Amino acid sequence: MGRVAPAQVRRITCVGAGVIGGGWVAYFLAHGYAVTAWDPGPDAESRLRHLVEAAWPALSEIGLADGASPDNLAVAPDLASAVDGTDFVQESAPEDLDLKIRLLGDIDAVTAPEIVVSSSTSGYGMSEMQVACAHPERTVVAHPFNPPYLIPLVEVVGGKATDPEVVEWTSEFFEHAGKAVITMDREVPGFVANRLQEALWREALHMVAHGEATVEQIDRAITEGPGLRWASQGPMLTFHLAGGQGGMTHMLDHFGPSLLSPWTRLDAPELTPRLRSDVVAGCEAEAQGRSIDDLVAERDHSLIAILRALGRA
Amino acid sequence: MGRVAPAQVRRITCVGAGVIGGGWVAYFLAHGYAVTAWDPGPDAESRLRHLVEAAWPALSEIGLADGASPDNLAVAPDLASAVDGTDFVQESAPEDLDLKIRLLGDIDAVTAPEIVVSSSTSGYGMSEMQVACAHPERTVVAHPFNPPYLIPLVEVVGGKATDPEVVEWTSEFFEHAGKAVITMDREVPGFVANRLQEALWREALHMVAHGEATVEQIDRAITEGPGLRWASQGPMLTFHLAGGQGGMTHMLDHFGPSLLSPWTRLDAPELTPRLRSDVVAGCEAEAQGRSIDDLVAERDHSLIAILRALGRA
Repeated sequence: MGRVAPAQVRRITCVGAGVIGGGWVAYFLAHGYAVTAWDPGPDAESRLRHLVEAAWPALSEIGLADGASPDNLAVAPDLASAVDGTDFVQESAPEDLDLKIRLLGDIDAVTAPEIVVSSSTSGYGMSEMQVACAHPERTVVAHPFNPPYLIPLVEVVGGKATDPEVVEWTSEFFEHAGKAVITMDREVPGFVANRLQEALWREALHMVAHGEATVEQIDRAITEGPGLRWASQGPMLTFHLAGGQGGMTHMLDHFGPSLLSPWTRLDAPELTPRLRSDVVAGCEAEAQGRSIDDLVAERDHSLIAILRALGRA
Repeated sequence: MGRVAPAQVRRITCVGAGVIGGGWVAYFLAHGYAVTAWDPGPDAESRLRHLVEAAWPALSEIGLADGASPDNLAVAPDLASAVDGTDFVQESAPEDLDLKIRLLGDIDAVTAPEIVVSSSTSGYGMSEMQVACAHPERTVVAHPFNPPYLIPLVEVVGGKATDPEVVEWTSEFFEHAGKAVITMDREVPGFVANRLQEALWREALHMVAHGEATVEQIDRAITEGPGLRWASQGPMLTFHLAGGQGGMTHMLDHFGPSLLSPWTRLDAPELTPRLRSDVVAGCEAEAQGRSIDDLVAERDHSLIAILRALGRA
């Protein structure tokens, strides 16, 4: 029995059924998969069914796949029966390295060796976690964002012993399943989005600790400010438009010195000619020929749509 | 002649007509104010009229105030005539401290002393900038976000010599003019939103410099991930919901140790009992009695609306 093609996956096993694992269960069910879940916690099944029920109206509103139903969820009494006949395993246990190592080893021991075993870990590298597996080559990280049934992003990255074909298979599977995938070519603690989010979160905690801003001011500063832009254009493209017609080039040359200002507790990188040209080239590639005027019009259109969607325009 | 009440402002002077100054001009015009602009740059008037024209469709779509028209814009030949008879001055010159000091001194010298003079600076404190003013008590910072005609946030903060009543007047004026105002009780370099944004931006630049992520991956990591949440719930409330029914308390106790993980180059603050309880209390205050289930339902509702508004659901 070989591994099925990413588009041929029908049965998915979800190990761990907390906020993230339960969110995955709801997502996979809504996309028409048959899901078998296993969680060793007390009341795991009732908590999981409550979670799926709570997510279902949102998923129905977006649109369910043919045949999608909460009835396609089975809760298994043990790990071995949970992975029996599965096409794909997604592990979402608590963030505890020893637990993850042991659990991935247990999953590995009872799952057919060609089946891809993926972890929702929000920060560990698979190299650290795959050490107790006899078949580490089929283990991979696929990191979602809360709630996994609505936020598109999944970050996919392998560990040292992971087969590059498994990384590719996993990215294709999640794309087929409707996710927005970032495939990383190396392990970085926290991956991409959590590194950015964590820098902001730590600065926010410092500000609260020093009485510089309240919790509410921090949230309003984002939801009434840059948070509205970041739903449609990321931080790089946002600054590409802050420089007027000169784009990111003007922005870096004009605001580059503010990198040295004490605007955050995080030290700035040196703005070398190489970094400058990489950032400018990246923005140009992302713009795909759209002029600054085009991007400004798109941004404004998106901002109005978002403000309206939130009842704020 | 005393200062008019915030709701009685009719004529506004905008000094500087680049991306931010021009955005302010468009915003004030759309809200029915008469605006006089002055900018010493070449072609300032034609660039400004182009900017107002480009913003006008968006502003019309949101809804114009009675009598609002681009015809209510006058471009003055010099600073003295620009401030003649004005009710309020908003300065949006380039970010150069010496220039700001000189320009605010010049504005101060020709403007009736009771008129509030506000600066769009994105990072300087008014204490640094008001030093050449004979009437520093009427100078204040009101920092907008690009584009000022669509992003609601304005951060208002005075300098050492600023009259607290001027800070209050300015916050009331911008609230009356339809903005979401954060009034700060102390000067912090970068204010609130730029500190958070800058921490994220610097982490992103470090990642590009080290080949950990491309410009496009950074933007997608935000627009497909946390950026979608941050348009409706800020980073604090987002994490309040990441802890399941236990809220921020569970989140800090469960993920607190990840503050020590190398998920960003920014060192974490010590999670003291005081900081922990301030953050938890702040989230509870912000929730205003809404349960975790209520907040989850609101978040999902907003996420779906945002995804739909962006044509992504």
